[in-house]
Amino acid sequence: MAKNIFRKELKDLKPYIPGKPVEKVMEEYGLTEVVKLASNENPLGPSKLAIEAIINEAPRVNIYPDPSVEIVKEKLMQKHGFPREQIVVGNGGEEIIKMIAMTFINEGDEAVMQDPTFSLYDITISHMGGVSKKIPLVDFETDLDAMIDAINEKTKLVYLCNPNNPIGNIVSKDKLDNFVDKIPEDVVLVLDEAYFEYASRNIEYPDGLEVLKRRPNTIVLRTFAKIAGLAGLRIGYAFSSEEIITEMAKTKGVFNVNRIAQVAAAAAMGDDEHIKNTVDLNYESIGYMVDYFESKGLRYVKTSANFIFADLGIDSKQTFVDLQKKGMIMRPGFIWGYETWARISSGSMEDTKKFMTALDEIIG
Amino acid sequence: MAKNIFRKELKDLKPYIPGKPVEKVMEEYGLTEVVKLASNENPLGPSKLAIEAIINEAPRVNIYPDPSVEIVKEKLMQKHGFPREQIVVGNGGEEIIKMIAMTFINEGDEAVMQDPTFSLYDITISHMGGVSKKIPLVDFETDLDAMIDAINEKTKLVYLCNPNNPIGNIVSKDKLDNFVDKIPEDVVLVLDEAYFEYASRNIEYPDGLEVLKRRPNTIVLRTFAKIAGLAGLRIGYAFSSEEIITEMAKTKGVFNVNRIAQVAAAAAMGDDEHIKNTVDLNYESIGYMVDYFESKGLRYVKTSANFIFADLGIDSKQTFVDLQKKGMIMRPGFIWGYETWARISSGSMEDTKKFMTALDEIIG
Repeated sequence: MAKNIFRKELKDLKPYIPGKPVEKVMEEYGLTEVVKLASNENPLGPSKLAIEAIINEAPRVNIYPDPSVEIVKEKLMQKHGFPREQIVVGNGGEEIIKMIAMTFINEGDEAVMQDPTFSLYDITISHMGGVSKKIPLVDFETDLDAMIDAINEKTKLVYLCNPNNPIGNIVSKDKLDNFVDKIPEDVVLVLDEAYFEYASRNIEYPDGLEVLKRRPNTIVLRTFAKIAGLAGLRIGYAFSSEEIITEMAKTKGVFNVNRIAQVAAAAAMGDDEHIKNTVDLNYESIGYMVDYFESKGLRYVKTSANFIFADLGIDSKQTFVDLQKKGMIMRPGFIWGYETWARISSGSMEDTKKFMTALDEIIG
Repeated sequence: MAKNIFRKELKDLKPYIPGKPVEKVMEEYGLTEVVKLASNENPLGPSKLAIEAIINEAPRVNIYPDPSVEIVKEKLMQKHGFPREQIVVGNGGEEIIKMIAMTFINEGDEAVMQDPTFSLYDITISHMGGVSKKIPLVDFETDLDAMIDAINEKTKLVYLCNPNNPIGNIVSKDKLDNFVDKIPEDVVLVLDEAYFEYASRNIEYPDGLEVLKRRPNTIVLRTFAKIAGLAGLRIGYAFSSEEIITEMAKTKGVFNVNRIAQVAAAAAMGDDEHIKNTVDLNYESIGYMVDYFESKGLRYVKTSANFIFADLGIDSKQTFVDLQKKGMIMRPGFIWGYETWARISSGSMEDTKKFMTALDEIIG
């Protein structure tokens, strides 16, 4: 083709590579059962209240969803005390991450972020013509000083994934407060708290909404995907200043959140028991894995999320394939440049034990 | 705030204004019943097969959806004979429209489109820094010659909404073929066929997939929102060349189509009776409205969609309010600069009659 018909940023854009659906792995390896501890999904399934709400809503899916997602906003307002003008809801947290790039980034604008971290920050920034400044972790800890040093006149956004995906550890309240004080006022701080409810069990974990209260140019991201077991429905949300939410809303899909996700999320928010059981199970599963790593003398990072990052001591690309043959799926560390590491999601205790048994057969 | 923290295109971006949800209108006017003929929704509801699929899938919504939406692609492949590499599925047709702007438009690039037409083309183009060349209709017909004349070196996209929303009429096969021949090869033609199944009853209506077969730089958009009654689930799709679909896929949400939409759309595609009944009812409802307009000597545009554009002869802004007080909702024409016109969706025969009775009381 004579002229390049595409937006120029696409040429070097590396798309996000999601894990394979369970069905594909089963087909590929002729398996009848697969244990997937790769996508940080909720092993308890969705709340029963959410399932009920979905079934009740099914006959009405011919009607467009409420574009302002009021039923969810009202519950969030009640729970967190922010007005609706400070909340936006998205087609999963990922739409909100895309909205952030589309709200702030022009060509040449910069964003500072951890490395590794959730890769969609960089992908969406690059797509809008921006430049990501990726600050390597130091011994698996976020290098907050280096992040501050990376801020310059072109910096529009600073992302902090807390707990950091794929590592699982947190930036503590003290460190965050200190970090926040050093960020110039006109740079927007994005606190991605997708694993908030899990991390809250850690007394050192800070609540991003407290930061927002004293620093309006802050965006706090949360999601129903993990804690509420609604990953399949796609619904995440963010809090920020009214000014920022107004601009972000211009970039969202008009009818971005489907009707089923809306009713299910609203219902799930009322199921405290499901939330408690989810977090309880998470730490039981993580504890089981930690015991195994300790017994083998394998290194791992202390996690406050629903996954753990561990050094299996063997090539992760090969281990990924070997595990798949046994019907076990994890996220291999080579994706993020950690050749012998893996990110393993918490699971039901049955799945956790099956997975660790299979892993042990490979590690030997 | 000292510096403008936002992407510069947002300043003049006018967001899409959706109609109010029925619940809000009821609350506002203290109504117990509302007839909404404003959003081109399917009055029959979703297919029973889709409802069944939704209920069966409810317990699995804790699992992320298949990012490649294979179950829907396979049905589309069977039905239309294009390979999976030529299909992309979106969070409603609106995500695909956004993806198109994000795939092709850099700052200053141009797009040619009808005026009026579906406003999201312009909004998404503007957001990416592009310029929309809006070509006014002539006596409610698309001015294809003027659209060709508007193409220049900067033109990346030509949009043709067929049938055109909010007008409802079509560009016929002969005219489209002639138009297509005049578009330079390296300009991408977007054929939005959101109302395809309704329009197909008109023997003059062209099938965009035939254009794609001979002209690879063509994108054909369709949706499950209307014909399948799945507007609330958000699922639309597009066919194009493999090269274009590959680039477009880089711009989509990773897990963009929720699990419920995927199973419901796949199920709905097997329900030929629901599709036939939907189109039958549409033309019965439209016929009833046409009879009324004829009897009153009111002007309307012959439609091949599930809505009709008609001149009520009175101020549409006021009529919109007067109708709402009676629990009736339509889309007033002033939105598109047609002060005395309205776009009215087809409905159940009961709702259609109620609506026309209420309208008649106002017109007098």
